[in-house]
Amino acid sequence: MKVSRRAHVRPFAVMGVLAEANARRAAGESILNLCAGEPGSGAADVVRRHAADIMRDGDLGYTEAMGIPALRNGIAEHYSRWYDVAVEPGHVAVTTGSSGGFLLAFLAAFDPGDRVALARPGYPAYANILRSLGCDVVELDCGPAERYQPTVPRLMEAYYEGGLDGLILASPANPTGTMVDARELRTIADWCADHDVRLISDEIYHGITGGDVETPALPSGSPAGAPTAATYRDAGAVVVSSFSKYWGMTGWRIGWLVLPDDLVGPVEALAGNVALCPPALAQHAGVVALGDEGMAAAAESVAYYAASRELLLRRTADLGWDPVAPADGAFYLYGNIARFGMGSVEYCARLLAEAGVALTPGTDFDPEGGGDWVRLSFAASPEVVAEAVERIVAWQSTLGR
Amino acid sequence: MKVSRRAHVRPFAVMGVLAEANARRAAGESILNLCAGEPGSGAADVVRRHAADIMRDGDLGYTEAMGIPALRNGIAEHYSRWYDVAVEPGHVAVTTGSSGGFLLAFLAAFDPGDRVALARPGYPAYANILRSLGCDVVELDCGPAERYQPTVPRLMEAYYEGGLDGLILASPANPTGTMVDARELRTIADWCADHDVRLISDEIYHGITGGDVETPALPSGSPAGAPTAATYRDAGAVVVSSFSKYWGMTGWRIGWLVLPDDLVGPVEALAGNVALCPPALAQHAGVVALGDEGMAAAAESVAYYAASRELLLRRTADLGWDPVAPADGAFYLYGNIARFGMGSVEYCARLLAEAGVALTPGTDFDPEGGGDWVRLSFAASPEVVAEAVERIVAWQSTLGR
Repeated sequence: MKVSRRAHVRPFAVMGVLAEANARRAAGESILNLCAGEPGSGAADVVRRHAADIMRDGDLGYTEAMGIPALRNGIAEHYSRWYDVAVEPGHVAVTTGSSGGFLLAFLAAFDPGDRVALARPGYPAYANILRSLGCDVVELDCGPAERYQPTVPRLMEAYYEGGLDGLILASPANPTGTMVDARELRTIADWCADHDVRLISDEIYHGITGGDVETPALPSGSPAGAPTAATYRDAGAVVVSSFSKYWGMTGWRIGWLVLPDDLVGPVEALAGNVALCPPALAQHAGVVALGDEGMAAAAESVAYYAASRELLLRRTADLGWDPVAPADGAFYLYGNIARFGMGSVEYCARLLAEAGVALTPGTDFDPEGGGDWVRLSFAASPEVVAEAVERIVAWQSTLGR
Repeated sequence: MKVSRRAHVRPFAVMGVLAEANARRAAGESILNLCAGEPGSGAADVVRRHAADIMRDGDLGYTEAMGIPALRNGIAEHYSRWYDVAVEPGHVAVTTGSSGGFLLAFLAAFDPGDRVALARPGYPAYANILRSLGCDVVELDCGPAERYQPTVPRLMEAYYEGGLDGLILASPANPTGTMVDARELRTIADWCADHDVRLISDEIYHGITGGDVETPALPSGSPAGAPTAATYRDAGAVVVSSFSKYWGMTGWRIGWLVLPDDLVGPVEALAGNVALCPPALAQHAGVVALGDEGMAAAAESVAYYAASRELLLRRTADLGWDPVAPADGAFYLYGNIARFGMGSVEYCARLLAEAGVALTPGTDFDPEGGGDWVRLSFAASPEVVAEAVERIVAWQSTLGR
């Protein structure tokens, strides 16, 4: 019997690394896992306590397809507090993680055959979801010169090559951590609006920036401070975000969209059919995560990444990865390891086998050039990151380059 | 800016009924809501207690894309216990509700342009999801003569009309509650296999049957007893199920697929991209729901529906709906109200306004003939159902037909 063509998704090389890492750990080896894009902290105590209380008192049923009003209101207020931007709760769609958000946004904005651009390297699920929905993915080759981010010249090339219907932009980005500054983002958003290109902005790493540890709320004037919803509203853009990273709530599967006028109705209609509703308990937990105690706990958790980031930047020369992407935000260091004389899949396999450190091969983020790159996640504790750097430096010195 | 063509989903008429019902209830009116396909019981106490304990002790992160091994094993064992059928845990994919399961199954099995058949009347999200994914939906007109279910002659017509790539079958069905008996199901599965038509079997109402209240586990020889996974494995079919109905866990968003060999890899690859993983807490809760105490509590909850069902069947003549679909399973009564001289949308609006009972217009399940039909959900308590029947009968008698 036939299997769909769209089911032919390239498997992730990191899955092999993770399986090997787990096997070695189970066999008693000391393994440092720097693959996962997952905060170790988990949800704040106040969030978990609230969830436990709800579960003790009774069960929750289906909710509204777009999410409970308390959470839509809470998210709208969050935009006011963090960004000084007015978002109407009616324009917020609560989703099953950012994954559920991307699916709904792509379905609402793009038809089969539509051309959607994104940066390469980038988070591979964008392209995989888009292709599974029948869209044509236009990979923009974005290297060090572009800070690994889409630029208007790159967009123009794609546009004149065959038209363009959408752009996925991530700032801070995965795997590079680079951010697009406010002026550049405004330029890109304006270009998209002028050319009827739907901008989808992945903002799941907002608040995790290298700049100001004491003020995880994006400080005004910071690269990602201005642009969100305000810039986007008149550009017809969609903001995608999530409780997974800043609030450490990965397993809860809860995120959101901020929608322009013309997509509110379509997303609502699709959401009821495609997902029914987001997980109910996670929605109530999200309300608490956005409260004062939840926000304070999240700010404390993300402060850890800054320590790891500083340590990594101090040791970049010793690591000898060249170039490394500027880790403006998120918790990733993306570095070029071509000088070690092997591809990144082999590099990662040997580093794991010989030094017990698990990294992600760049091929997962860039099928063309990723063989020269690896991603190190510093979402782990600073101690683990420090030990991993020692091991990597020591192991690389045995390679006799 | 462009909105996708696939976002043009027909809105559900029941949404208007629900909004009006909520407004009237908020204004102090006594409203009986028989719209929702949602068990009032919620998850078993033992399930909620387990979830509360987990949340007190710590947080859960991302899980495997296909679900935690304990739940995949538990679901496989459930097939052994309930159906005496061997299912390998590796063929079970845990999903974000049955909604997440349908999405993955459709993506893995069907490409844009593929023709997929389903019964009309039926659960509207099947067609809406399929169309949003670019598939062509072939509605099989299934009336009283077919017990509202697909038949081989109907399938043959569709097949010779333009080819056929898939069939969605639901037993017990929503909105009719009718079931396909074991021999007929075997015949349909064989026909599908012979014609390379992928059978997707929605079994979310399994265990909620009118037959044997004391034995909610499907008794051997019962209509739905034999066919599941065993029959399907060699037919290349996909089983879709959920914790929402039998276990009353709607808001948790947790369900599963049982997959044939050729779809295991594709679904796993898609799941990691489209959903990352199902909600983690709900997965752990699902393990407990399948334990002895969880199963006993679920059996007790579904016993309520039998009482409501018997009451409704006793009062069918008084209701004067003719015909009504045989409510073999699930918790729905689907009846023809054409004799009351108005369409079902008007019937439902007036019944709500004049008698305070909310039903679902049949147009949501059958855009062509549904104007003559309404769906009554008896997932509410037997007392509520009894009171609703009194009000409906009294209100209908005022219509002077």
